[in-house]
Amino acid sequence: MDETAPVITPEEPDGIAAFKHAFRRHAAGVVVITALTPEGKPVGFTATSLASLAAVPPLATFNMAKVASAWPAVAGTDWVAIQTMGARTRHLAERMSGDHDLRFEGDHWAPGPHGLPILEGVTSWMVGRIVERFPVANNVVVVVQVEEGALGEPDAALLYHERTYLKPGETV
Amino acid sequence: MDETAPVITPEEPDGIAAFKHAFRRHAAGVVVITALTPEGKPVGFTATSLASLAAVPPLATFNMAKVASAWPAVAGTDWVAIQTMGARTRHLAERMSGDHDLRFEGDHWAPGPHGLPILEGVTSWMVGRIVERFPVANNVVVVVQVEEGALGEPDAALLYHERTYLKPGETV
Repeated sequence: MDETAPVITPEEPDGIAAFKHAFRRHAAGVVVITALTPEGKPVGFTATSLASLAAVPPLATFNMAKVASAWPAVAGTDWVAIQTMGARTRHLAERMSGDHDLRFEGDHWAPGPHGLPILEGVTSWMVGRIVERFPVANNVVVVVQVEEGALGEPDAALLYHERTYLKPGETV
Repeated sequence: MDETAPVITPEEPDGIAAFKHAFRRHAAGVVVITALTPEGKPVGFTATSLASLAAVPPLATFNMAKVASAWPAVAGTDWVAIQTMGARTRHLAERMSGDHDLRFEGDHWAPGPHGLPILEGVTSWMVGRIVERFPVANNVVVVVQVEEGALGEPDAALLYHERTYLKPGETV
């Protein structure tokens, strides 16, 4: 294992340094998750943590910090919309990770099932019921059972890797 | 939302059809997770569910089915190794999702911290302690606190998308 010499970083504990280095090597698909506050105000955020948990029943997970602006809404609602993003909607992924006040300013979304905001041009959306919120330190693993959804426009999947948005390349 | 007409699939409930369609549009990074059985036998599997949960403390999640061959080992150990895969190790990702008896046949791995199998040529590895195993129906969300790790060889990240292995492409 010569090629995997330990990461020496005097500034950071080993686990944190290893974690940061490893996740920089990991590429992830990009989704936007939306919900409504109890007052019916739309909230949403860009995430790279969407993962399949099971196909039958259709279960997916995503992770978030309790300090996230959308956490109170996700904590207080039964429903979320998960939207897979394509290359042509990179600007929406950026918007949904930017200034909170601007995320739903405009006509780039419309209300879908349960009034949940669905972004225009996404490659697919799923609406599901939150079935578990597992707390871990100051974070939460959210488990969603998908109940409906639709395919969107054909588009290259949007990836996030090395702090950059990109699309899939050649098969290997 | 004309472009997102409902998915009509008489054969499947709405949620399952929506889930399958959406995850086909989603691209994911590929990792291999390894562990030891109580008898010290190596087990491992290829996964696309690795997600960051927090950086401080360094927490990651992955999902698995309780029917997975590696589940008894993951259920019974405190330690796992998570390895991010690169394009040059596609063959190892395939091997670790193939015949169980052949996954550790050969010299493509070596024991690392806690005796955990570390595959040769991976882009990084992290060894962590399992801090939670959250059951959901017949599946489990596993939460790992990373304690050490290292960068591996420079290589393009390995992705799985549309049932194909590929590497990242152009920035968008």
